[in-house]
Amino acid sequence: MKGEPRPLHEAVRHTTLVESERLSRRLKARVALVSETFQHTGSFKFRAAYNLASKVPQELIVTASSGNFGQALAYACGLLGKRAIVVMPATAAAVKIEAVRDYGATVELVDVNTRSRAERVAELAEAFPLAYVASAYDDPFVIEGNASLGTEIANLDRELDCVLAPVGGGGLSAGLIQGLRQAGSRVPVLGAEPLLANDAARSLQLGRIVANACEPQSLADGARTLSLGRCNWEILRKEMAGIVEIPEWAIAEGLRLLFELANLKAEPTAALSIGALLAEPERFRNRSVCCVISGGNVDPGVYQSLLARAG
Amino acid sequence: MKGEPRPLHEAVRHTTLVESERLSRRLKARVALVSETFQHTGSFKFRAAYNLASKVPQELIVTASSGNFGQALAYACGLLGKRAIVVMPATAAAVKIEAVRDYGATVELVDVNTRSRAERVAELAEAFPLAYVASAYDDPFVIEGNASLGTEIANLDRELDCVLAPVGGGGLSAGLIQGLRQAGSRVPVLGAEPLLANDAARSLQLGRIVANACEPQSLADGARTLSLGRCNWEILRKEMAGIVEIPEWAIAEGLRLLFELANLKAEPTAALSIGALLAEPERFRNRSVCCVISGGNVDPGVYQSLLARAG
Repeated sequence: MKGEPRPLHEAVRHTTLVESERLSRRLKARVALVSETFQHTGSFKFRAAYNLASKVPQELIVTASSGNFGQALAYACGLLGKRAIVVMPATAAAVKIEAVRDYGATVELVDVNTRSRAERVAELAEAFPLAYVASAYDDPFVIEGNASLGTEIANLDRELDCVLAPVGGGGLSAGLIQGLRQAGSRVPVLGAEPLLANDAARSLQLGRIVANACEPQSLADGARTLSLGRCNWEILRKEMAGIVEIPEWAIAEGLRLLFELANLKAEPTAALSIGALLAEPERFRNRSVCCVISGGNVDPGVYQSLLARAG
Repeated sequence: MKGEPRPLHEAVRHTTLVESERLSRRLKARVALVSETFQHTGSFKFRAAYNLASKVPQELIVTASSGNFGQALAYACGLLGKRAIVVMPATAAAVKIEAVRDYGATVELVDVNTRSRAERVAELAEAFPLAYVASAYDDPFVIEGNASLGTEIANLDRELDCVLAPVGGGGLSAGLIQGLRQAGSRVPVLGAEPLLANDAARSLQLGRIVANACEPQSLADGARTLSLGRCNWEILRKEMAGIVEIPEWAIAEGLRLLFELANLKAEPTAALSIGALLAEPERFRNRSVCCVISGGNVDPGVYQSLLARAG
């Protein structure tokens, strides 16, 4: 099988639809959870990574993602017989480094006190001029990969008032919009962004990309991006129906409710879409809402402390 | 919709197939997880409860289950416009009592220091002579309901060397065998039973039902039954391919591996089937094993302590 790219819809796992009567009752809305926690490597990022790795001609791909994209790219490259180098901060959680190595990539650890990951990526790009340098969120292949999730949601063939998805660099929501529209759905897509990292909300208000001054320390580590990606912005500025800004308490409470009422292990970033229903209950009351649960990779210690803390 | 029984395969949610490359690698077997954690009310018991409640003519159903069957019966009766009374020990976890009430049943709390739940059920049966008294595991309707999961596994259409399922009263494994055989599959079904509560293993050895002397205090609270049910025994004695006896450490470790490598929140009883691969790794090495994850309803405090303890 190695080296033979498969069509994306065959290479990815179909998303998992989870519905919980008790969760819907608690949130006073008809909630359909679209869970990517059982996707290959545990998050939607595999869609983008496989699409990118199968479409670029390069045999070596370099990325700086320390999170889900790194694992996804490592695994996708393994399936395709390609090589991946993932640049990670030396301070990254051991389980994350181990996961990327488990999936077969080379990990390059950087002491971020002495130089940035971007610098190390630039060095690697120079050392390996034939490598493709992949952004985790700002690349047409990333959007196209994530669009496969939009297509699947459109094909669920249910009446939805809106789709709610976490926003970091905007690759997921841009892909969702692209996939839904291609499949003929006009359902509004709303972003759920940490209030602490509300650059996307501010960008939509101002009509141009604005960046956070420094990496925001939200619980939602997948949304700690400095700004939206440029490719994503072109889609979001026209088609994003709005952004809900989520306070930290609602992220933790969303994670807890998913655990307790839907038996779903979500990572904090993935709980943002439930956080939106907690933060603005009137906006979604009695609506039919599709919440994208973007991934489930969370450190057990962090997860335990969130379960204990919230509620 | 109320009051109109639907065919069972429409009333239940199709089981969720979860596969994790990292879990399979860790367990040195090809593991397919068949998860009932997203079934209505969070466990496979809804299959039995809906089938029973829709097939018996009685409008009132009484049961003594304090666990998943109580919730499942409460919800099934609500859907069917019937009434349920669930007898629970006064010491049951508040979240469990709340869940049964949430689903619309009447809860009867019994101080088990002064009289048994069976006594209270007998009193209720006398007070309501038109009620059906339902066993959570020993009833042909229960087996028939659980058989729907066996049918779904057969229809997954994959090569399996065996199916592993938790064993308490035997209703799940008897149903699996019935459903698989009806669908034409001859795949062996193995039970995973707590070593602390190994009455099924001893029963198979001796060729007759033997009971535990008292309620065994395994972590796997769904397997704390005194003995196999008689209806189940008739199937299991002929067709059960074996029982793996699971030490407590392997239950906790199985739960933790499901969390960490498969993003799956399982209740301790549901982790028994993974515990079997941990307890007898050579028996399953490189085999294609379908592990039934029977449910996900677990107290957050218990879950946290298991995550913290294991590993």
